[in-house]
Amino acid sequence: MDPSSSNSLVAQGLAARKAAKRLALSSGHQRRRSLLALADAIGAHREQILDANERDLEECGSTMPRSQVDRLRLDAGRLDAMVSSIRVISEQPDVVGVVESGWRLPNGVEVERVRVPLGVIGVIYENRPNVTSDSAALCVMSGNAVLLRGSSSAMNSNRAIVDAMRAGLAATDLPQDSVLLVEDCSHEGVREFMELEGVLDCLIPRGGKSLLAAVREYSRVPTIFDGEGNCHIYVDARADLTMALQIVGNAKLQRPGVCNAVETILVHSAVAAEFLSRLDPLFAAVVIRGDQRVQDAIPRAEPASEQDWETEYLDYKVAIRVIESVDHAIDHIERYSSGHSEAVVTEDLAVARRFVEEVDAAAVLVNASPRFIDGGELGFGAEIGISTQKLHARGPMGMRELTTLKYVVHGYGQIRG
Amino acid sequence: MDPSSSNSLVAQGLAARKAAKRLALSSGHQRRRSLLALADAIGAHREQILDANERDLEECGSTMPRSQVDRLRLDAGRLDAMVSSIRVISEQPDVVGVVESGWRLPNGVEVERVRVPLGVIGVIYENRPNVTSDSAALCVMSGNAVLLRGSSSAMNSNRAIVDAMRAGLAATDLPQDSVLLVEDCSHEGVREFMELEGVLDCLIPRGGKSLLAAVREYSRVPTIFDGEGNCHIYVDARADLTMALQIVGNAKLQRPGVCNAVETILVHSAVAAEFLSRLDPLFAAVVIRGDQRVQDAIPRAEPASEQDWETEYLDYKVAIRVIESVDHAIDHIERYSSGHSEAVVTEDLAVARRFVEEVDAAAVLVNASPRFIDGGELGFGAEIGISTQKLHARGPMGMRELTTLKYVVHGYGQIRG
Repeated sequence: MDPSSSNSLVAQGLAARKAAKRLALSSGHQRRRSLLALADAIGAHREQILDANERDLEECGSTMPRSQVDRLRLDAGRLDAMVSSIRVISEQPDVVGVVESGWRLPNGVEVERVRVPLGVIGVIYENRPNVTSDSAALCVMSGNAVLLRGSSSAMNSNRAIVDAMRAGLAATDLPQDSVLLVEDCSHEGVREFMELEGVLDCLIPRGGKSLLAAVREYSRVPTIFDGEGNCHIYVDARADLTMALQIVGNAKLQRPGVCNAVETILVHSAVAAEFLSRLDPLFAAVVIRGDQRVQDAIPRAEPASEQDWETEYLDYKVAIRVIESVDHAIDHIERYSSGHSEAVVTEDLAVARRFVEEVDAAAVLVNASPRFIDGGELGFGAEIGISTQKLHARGPMGMRELTTLKYVVHGYGQIRG
Repeated sequence: MDPSSSNSLVAQGLAARKAAKRLALSSGHQRRRSLLALADAIGAHREQILDANERDLEECGSTMPRSQVDRLRLDAGRLDAMVSSIRVISEQPDVVGVVESGWRLPNGVEVERVRVPLGVIGVIYENRPNVTSDSAALCVMSGNAVLLRGSSSAMNSNRAIVDAMRAGLAATDLPQDSVLLVEDCSHEGVREFMELEGVLDCLIPRGGKSLLAAVREYSRVPTIFDGEGNCHIYVDARADLTMALQIVGNAKLQRPGVCNAVETILVHSAVAAEFLSRLDPLFAAVVIRGDQRVQDAIPRAEPASEQDWETEYLDYKVAIRVIESVDHAIDHIERYSSGHSEAVVTEDLAVARRFVEEVDAAAVLVNASPRFIDGGELGFGAEIGISTQKLHARGPMGMRELTTLKYVVHGYGQIRG
């Protein structure tokens, strides 16, 4: 990074670094008060934000798929939810300054591992405007500055939300540049963003396959991927089928377009006939793809191909496979899982235990809907993504995942022998 | 990765993945017993290992710099230390299965965050043969399989050590393929190693700038960098100068070739004259580079250039700068530090506090030698490197850093409302 560059992205990056230094030294009280100011400011700028969102919808609405229009749309209720989410985040325990562990060496040297902010976080995301406010609140509350790069289709909304938040910050003792919006949404702009070495301490890309591939290819900064969710539910021979139907119904029908929705159901052959006959009417609105036995049980089912086992539909579609054992389920999941959330429905303790131990994913669930694997549901206030990687963060990322540890060592002259 | 490839690296990778699945399900007892078997086997193969090392020394010794010959050389004492390090690692508390936190959601769903092995670890390193045994022991004890890729100059030694360890494993119920040596040390081989997507859960490169640059450029797998240490000691106006001289002496003279040795000393002008006059004889064997005031106080001192502030000498060389305040020290460190270990010597509590809070590094030390920032010294048994990055691992990496967390969720039919 060339600090003399007149480039506005670099200038924003340097402003963010300066803000991050002040944030790192701020108290939890200061950050909490600032979050309340952010929330109030979004409430106070309500009309401007809704108007800006209306302009975004007018500009993109006619060419955009309905599901995306729905993600982009703000209304009074969603705006209230954004404000309330910031308030919930402000009430979380402070993660900064927590001493995770501490001990004394035999020579009297005292060692502590203390949680500190990462510094400057970059977030690349799509068109949901609440990601703008959630990300800003999570970053600031955890002592980080944030560079937000949303999609061009939400630019008016994001600008209005960030303007409101910066107006809110202006009334506090934290720097306005704690929250910055990157306005260049071109492909070159996003490349340049990923190359902000020395500026971004962490980049969090939230988006589709092509964004993630570009980040893997070009990013020069440390990255945490918000991964995709090809999630499975295994309905065991000893499942309570009423419970199983409730869980798969919740996991597919409540909100099919999210990463913790179920995409493939694996059902044990011993219960397949009854399970599938009860599933058919429940999933009337769902396209079912399955193996031969599924097609035999549900005549409207289409044949499933290899690609169906691999696909995160994010839609009213599901793949179903009849299998013979928990081993078979574990093998199928090992082969096709994206490592997000994997669930088993069973009353058999040995099956539950094997599933929990052998399935390698961010989350494994026994007799519960994978829809719980979400920062809000798990009690983190909100999340800045769900990681399917193993390093640094795995599963829903809250404020703790936006921090690192620092060894703080106190002695009185000790040297190494 | 193409599993049908006949390539031996891919075959080794698949063998390691298979071993990792068994290791992940092993008990702490099994892993502990296996480590003792590793240690015994290295002891039993002592002659073969020392002979192999002799061959390495004969092949490289005449062309290799003396400091590197010293790193490569094994003798009875160093072999004993390798064995004893494995035993110490075997005595560490098990990191696998630790429930880091757990709570119940309002609806009764139980959530736990459980520590699990990463899977397969790749380690690329230089010619110290003890890294071979330390890395293997740390990986196996933390439930991971390991692919070891040492330098070609240590190939005979590494082969003998790995043969011994695999012979040791053969007598246990853990798979031999928990420990594998990659024998292709060509540049193409190392590129291929970095591209083992789906095989390596984590790559740890330990080496010089060119290796790290290559990994940054080409690696397709998650990486933790064992970073360099451009470490500073700030001798404050209110330092106890006798203590300061002991600490800088320990940090430069005890072992100059290591990453936690001091490279630049910053001394407050108020104490510079006395400090430097006492340092001069103590550092008789050290090349001193300094600013004008240092050269005035120590006539043999050479002028320091910008490059000296940037350099990790790893040698009997030190850069010294006279400064005016703790702010100046913090600014210098922010500009030149590699983020490893930074120390202050002071009796002033406010200075200590500011240094600890404002210096951004893996470790900050007050009145103690930076040489303590080492896995063995801090009580981890050994280390698989020292991370200067902020994500996942920061500072000395022990067994905990070779694990990840998995959400384990138990319910009795709960669904999301």
